[in-house]
Amino acid sequence: MDASEFREFGKAAVDFVADYLENIRDHEVLPSVEPGYLVELLPKQMPETPQSWREVLSDIDRVIKPGITHWQSPHMHAYYPTSTSYPSIVGEMLASGFSVVGFSWICSPACTELEVVVMDWLAKFLKLPTQFLHETEGPGGGIIQGSASEAVLVAVLAAREQAVRRESQLHPELSEGDIRGKLVAYSSDQSNSCIEKAGVLAAMPIRLLPAGEDLVLRGEALKEAIEQDVEAGLIPVICIATLGTTGTCAYDDIESLASICEAHHVWLHVDAAYAGAAFALEECSQLRRGLDRVDSLNFNLHKFMLVNFDCSAMWLRDSNKVVDSFNVDRIYLKHKYEGQTQIPDFRHWQIPLGRRFRALKVWITFRTMGAEGLRAHVRKHIDLAKQFEDMVKSDTRFELVAPRALGLVCFRAKGDNEITAQLLQRLMERKKIYMVKAEHRNRLFLRFAICGMDPKPADIKYAWSEIESQLTEITTPQLITRKAADVTELSQHLSGLQLTNETLER
Amino acid sequence: MDASEFREFGKAAVDFVADYLENIRDHEVLPSVEPGYLVELLPKQMPETPQSWREVLSDIDRVIKPGITHWQSPHMHAYYPTSTSYPSIVGEMLASGFSVVGFSWICSPACTELEVVVMDWLAKFLKLPTQFLHETEGPGGGIIQGSASEAVLVAVLAAREQAVRRESQLHPELSEGDIRGKLVAYSSDQSNSCIEKAGVLAAMPIRLLPAGEDLVLRGEALKEAIEQDVEAGLIPVICIATLGTTGTCAYDDIESLASICEAHHVWLHVDAAYAGAAFALEECSQLRRGLDRVDSLNFNLHKFMLVNFDCSAMWLRDSNKVVDSFNVDRIYLKHKYEGQTQIPDFRHWQIPLGRRFRALKVWITFRTMGAEGLRAHVRKHIDLAKQFEDMVKSDTRFELVAPRALGLVCFRAKGDNEITAQLLQRLMERKKIYMVKAEHRNRLFLRFAICGMDPKPADIKYAWSEIESQLTEITTPQLITRKAADVTELSQHLSGLQLTNETLER
Repeated sequence: MDASEFREFGKAAVDFVADYLENIRDHEVLPSVEPGYLVELLPKQMPETPQSWREVLSDIDRVIKPGITHWQSPHMHAYYPTSTSYPSIVGEMLASGFSVVGFSWICSPACTELEVVVMDWLAKFLKLPTQFLHETEGPGGGIIQGSASEAVLVAVLAAREQAVRRESQLHPELSEGDIRGKLVAYSSDQSNSCIEKAGVLAAMPIRLLPAGEDLVLRGEALKEAIEQDVEAGLIPVICIATLGTTGTCAYDDIESLASICEAHHVWLHVDAAYAGAAFALEECSQLRRGLDRVDSLNFNLHKFMLVNFDCSAMWLRDSNKVVDSFNVDRIYLKHKYEGQTQIPDFRHWQIPLGRRFRALKVWITFRTMGAEGLRAHVRKHIDLAKQFEDMVKSDTRFELVAPRALGLVCFRAKGDNEITAQLLQRLMERKKIYMVKAEHRNRLFLRFAICGMDPKPADIKYAWSEIESQLTEITTPQLITRKAADVTELSQHLSGLQLTNETLER
Repeated sequence: MDASEFREFGKAAVDFVADYLENIRDHEVLPSVEPGYLVELLPKQMPETPQSWREVLSDIDRVIKPGITHWQSPHMHAYYPTSTSYPSIVGEMLASGFSVVGFSWICSPACTELEVVVMDWLAKFLKLPTQFLHETEGPGGGIIQGSASEAVLVAVLAAREQAVRRESQLHPELSEGDIRGKLVAYSSDQSNSCIEKAGVLAAMPIRLLPAGEDLVLRGEALKEAIEQDVEAGLIPVICIATLGTTGTCAYDDIESLASICEAHHVWLHVDAAYAGAAFALEECSQLRRGLDRVDSLNFNLHKFMLVNFDCSAMWLRDSNKVVDSFNVDRIYLKHKYEGQTQIPDFRHWQIPLGRRFRALKVWITFRTMGAEGLRAHVRKHIDLAKQFEDMVKSDTRFELVAPRALGLVCFRAKGDNEITAQLLQRLMERKKIYMVKAEHRNRLFLRFAICGMDPKPADIKYAWSEIESQLTEITTPQLITRKAADVTELSQHLSGLQLTNETLER
């Protein structure tokens, strides 16, 4: 493909994307395909000779689009939002045009420096403590990681290595293996699966402490666990707190956790993957309490900041602790200015060597949206969730299972779990909206998250109408048919429901 | 920004990228900026109100482009190539348009299934053993990871967990901590820094065994190391072999390594990040020897397959070994079809939970280039490197330090290291071409890698002319001035050279 063909293909693709996003409500949010649909449709080998881009683009429409779960649809309410925006899409394309691999400053000064700039912009926008800024004296700063999983793993691994070094100095009589065998970390039983996975990958057990009745982890629970473990000869390393848990968007109590961590030389990391966006809002300033006492923090721009995945911000109070732990340099990676300036070589702050020019899409998005645009976007999500919350409250057949938090409402149909399970199954079959379920203390509930690139109040009404009408459908026929049905038929029907629920749970 | 503004901005950006790549030879490959240039140029805060995309695009030209190291320039000869291509750039944009996060099948069936398809296409194109195909019976298959670093880390961590389970069963009297303290892994002292880093991250020492005089690691050296370690009570876990080392593109001897690994139940991983592309060529079929005996393998599409970074293919002989090691599921991640089909949930094959739709750019690139286009691209790199090799051989002032391998030529100026160091420094100052240095047994040498999106024979002549003329510049003045200079002056000059070299090395 030459440049002139690229101009044609690229511009046709721009129109394809614009058409897709403008008309995204035309698609059912969930695809109607069975596993293996695409494997069966496509040839078993790549073509020997080049095919035209027109054919490929038409195939994207024909075979790819029907297999897409439309994350940018306003009818997406599953998981948490994954943002994109028009400027971010262009940013991604421009970055692939330059196609640099910015593992050190010399590999593209603009790649490293723009990341320093936008991470400081973002830290100020979120009103983070100044210790996390590159521009202030000291070893703190921010970096763009690929995902929250990666940011959490970096914190866990750096904390682990720091603990091993400290304990080796304190107890020269112990072998490194002995020390590593005693390490232990902490999080809440409400924390994201990536935190447990980080423990598996780091070969360090992470104790998932029981959150309180309100799903919040507090210093008291951590204190008890640490004291038990120290008593048993273990070495506490890190606590990963969450601001905005995956299940219900609960906020751990950072201040009380910080007090315990400080007393025991335990690294405190905060996973604010979703809720971090709210730091920017004056009305959510309580969420920032205690952040001046944490060692590291992550927040996904690709959840709430209109930047497309992957783009996960991470800040470190002392980046040297990561660099010391991860640096394994080679002569071919050295460059003239290395270590002489305040500009970091970010490869030492992360797992992989290679780095994409992700700062470009962030910069383009921030400039074309402006701080006021970003704040308005977060507030819109909150407002829409409030509207949905009011609808739930106004219908006595439903109940909230946790307070609405930012753009998330957790609710269920009153009564047995089966009703909620059956409701979800029905909604999934109809594919008009997409939610996922969660569970707390054996109560099944549904998570309604505001998602999509540009959701409107009418979309929330649409979702609510779908939900409440389907609950009516589920419950009404039973009432009507019960009169006519004999007992055997009814019990068959109920055992069928039970089975469906189990299938869903597995 | 609304859809109509996006259409304008996106199309302007397409033209920007086409103009940039068409005229890339107009730029010096290395930028003329000092550390901090961009941090000083840009505002300290994001703008409060939105700015126009025209202003932003013009700033990219004005402040970003001057800070780019032009990896797509044919005058780039540093590291290894990082590919991009016109179809791949469009693919990246389309993926950001859909902006799905494909961590499970239900999250976008097309995202998972297209990856299954293109990984099988690629495995067949590279003539890999059938055990690595999704379509054959058995637990093997391929996945797209972000980088070679990530692929190597996945192999190292999975091998570690498998070893711990096996040893726990064999020796129930040992604690898990005892077992973990005895684990050890192996690679060559020529392997990439990411392998040593994987050892640090996995908290498992990786012994970097001395490669032979020809820079190749063979079974014999591994056998000796394993026997020593077993004798000392350690537990050998994994050997990471390299096909195409970073320094000289040497090929480890997979067959003899496989025999030792099989005898000792050691996982054999092959890092073919660069050289893997040559598997596709009949004339390089010897590189595939032994691959039917390896447990896992990685190859960077973003090095040689015209797909832009990040895109690192990894194949596993038994994916269950990774899934068993990494799976930490939650109720909100479950879906109806899970575990019922042959379609994998790739989140269990990798470090992070989130996944980009990278298969889209691969599919678009493969279809628009065709297998013949991909093979022609690899052969072009080899031919251009041969042309450069001939030029080096024809000039008696230079010597090769290793046989040319694929698109890489390693050479030096004959004589003391200082001459080569000074030559490189001069080339770096002139910024016409970009190479990096490497070292073997105290001999400094230069790596000339064929890079860029579309290098031509004239670009190789340009580079050679730059290199040989600069060597002339360095050496000639000394000959002329030596006559006139007194001994003191000469020795001052030489000590200056020495200092320069040390600065460069640091």
